[in-house]
Amino acid sequence: MKIAVDVMGGDHAPEAILGGCKQFLEAESFRDAELVLFGEESALRTFAGENAALANRIRLVPTTEVIGFDESPTAAYKKKKDSSLVRAFETVKAGEADCVVSAGSTGALLTGATLTLRRQKGVKSPALATLLPTVTGGCVLLCDCGANTDCKPGYLQQFAVMGKAYMERVAGVENPRVALLSNGTEAEKGNALTKEVHERLSQMEDINFIGNAEARELMSGNFEVLVCDGFDGNVLLKGFEGAAKVILGLLKEAMYGSLRTKIGGLIAKPAFSVVKKKMDYKEYGGAPLLGVNGGVIKAHGSSDAKAIYNALRQAYTWVDGNLVSVIGETIGSIQIED
Amino acid sequence: MKIAVDVMGGDHAPEAILGGCKQFLEAESFRDAELVLFGEESALRTFAGENAALANRIRLVPTTEVIGFDESPTAAYKKKKDSSLVRAFETVKAGEADCVVSAGSTGALLTGATLTLRRQKGVKSPALATLLPTVTGGCVLLCDCGANTDCKPGYLQQFAVMGKAYMERVAGVENPRVALLSNGTEAEKGNALTKEVHERLSQMEDINFIGNAEARELMSGNFEVLVCDGFDGNVLLKGFEGAAKVILGLLKEAMYGSLRTKIGGLIAKPAFSVVKKKMDYKEYGGAPLLGVNGGVIKAHGSSDAKAIYNALRQAYTWVDGNLVSVIGETIGSIQIED
Repeated sequence: MKIAVDVMGGDHAPEAILGGCKQFLEAESFRDAELVLFGEESALRTFAGENAALANRIRLVPTTEVIGFDESPTAAYKKKKDSSLVRAFETVKAGEADCVVSAGSTGALLTGATLTLRRQKGVKSPALATLLPTVTGGCVLLCDCGANTDCKPGYLQQFAVMGKAYMERVAGVENPRVALLSNGTEAEKGNALTKEVHERLSQMEDINFIGNAEARELMSGNFEVLVCDGFDGNVLLKGFEGAAKVILGLLKEAMYGSLRTKIGGLIAKPAFSVVKKKMDYKEYGGAPLLGVNGGVIKAHGSSDAKAIYNALRQAYTWVDGNLVSVIGETIGSIQIED
Repeated sequence: MKIAVDVMGGDHAPEAILGGCKQFLEAESFRDAELVLFGEESALRTFAGENAALANRIRLVPTTEVIGFDESPTAAYKKKKDSSLVRAFETVKAGEADCVVSAGSTGALLTGATLTLRRQKGVKSPALATLLPTVTGGCVLLCDCGANTDCKPGYLQQFAVMGKAYMERVAGVENPRVALLSNGTEAEKGNALTKEVHERLSQMEDINFIGNAEARELMSGNFEVLVCDGFDGNVLLKGFEGAAKVILGLLKEAMYGSLRTKIGGLIAKPAFSVVKKKMDYKEYGGAPLLGVNGGVIKAHGSSDAKAIYNALRQAYTWVDGNLVSVIGETIGSIQIED
């Protein structure tokens, strides 16, 4: 199997990306994987020189352009033909690699996935999913979390199908429970979209649908897939992020407010570290884009080497689990109206 | 001025509600206010007996029914004619009180406001707003947070108008900054609804519109009114709530995980208290329902006496600021399409 890596994408590229690649290549479990590295020539050569033992498992593809976070994604993707991201997608399209991993611009990644790889047959709209930890020690896939605003009911049905496939094949969860994000747990709660989706999901025999879930349940561990419109998924994800920042900020401020609490704060520091680690996206890998002809993992923009390692691990399981074919077959076997 | 109080609504009714009424009546600032109390006769009589000095500022209205949290709101509201909530609304409708305060079922409150008080002339749909603290020490009004799913653009424009009026007249904020909840700060980000609303709000001269805001900014203090569809407002509010619960839970667990952190946890306890107080809805009063012919404050279901006191204080400022008339005049003066 071959994974295409955008070495130039992300806040800490190329060092963090190459560091993650090294960890991945050296790990016992992935000895049958090869990496195709797209990026600035001298960085690639230095990396190859320093890791001569890995030479037979890396292929270097020097590129001359980079798509930045501040560019218009579509325009940049169309214009920068020799960028690391465009070349990586072209390689997957040509069948010379199975999955793209990038910590660069989300917009450019979505553009590339759609323009170059294209939607899988039968998929109405690809979904960007995010894997989050739960308080019960498992994880939950929020799907969609930003690729689609203004979804039709059939989109969300397919998000359920693709999310289930991902959790089964990549996260190893048997018969994952699927919930629908709504403004109340009762079946009659919701907006026009979610009411229709609730009705439809209830009738899908292959989906282990447990009903509506409220936003506060995101990390409860009550389900493994949470289906929603991308606008709402974005609100939920960023709301959680904002709340975490506010609370930890207030706690720190309060702990340095008096001598007594200052000492407490210093002693309590390890607890903060535990919580941060538990909430850490780096532990869980990147965001999979589901429904295009090839694997796509969006690593967080601020990824360090460890986050990239985890994204590569995720890409490996994706390819190993044959996720693209599974999604294609499953979507093809179910008639879903818009 | 007269405030109608649903003494039977809420988890801790009637004790907590009556406790809040007592605090309010005894406070220096509200000596010109009278309370009309709706509830179970013996509870009201006991309260009146114990507070003989306040007798000239309370009116007791014994009622025989209560609308519970587990009932269908509309059916219960229509059926239970002698419930504390229905009688309170009828009294405001009859002009014998200016504002209803209830910690009971939100659904029943919305039903009562719509069926009994009715929408103000020109208001497309009343909005349930929530007042939240910000990290900069101010507060922000999230509007709508649950009364309306499937909003049309004109609804959100009116939420901006009503939210502005509330923050000016009740919270005392001059020319409040209004933001629009979206999935990105750029003007072109959003779904079909928010893109249209962005365009329209940009053209409203009387609204201090600062553009889109992401969910993570809710408590940033960058704006005083955050306008959104009620479905998204619910997701945001409950997402924040869920995140807070998860993080504080994990921190506590971690702090009791080892002796060192246990001691730290005990010493750091005051810091937790400070944060809890800062995040405490009880400090900020209830959720105002804007756009009906009368004041309506929904206090939190789990309100204690202090929360009820704050909701009454809020009702007082509402009536004192003549908010219903101000909203009526402002909405009447602006032509807004659906």
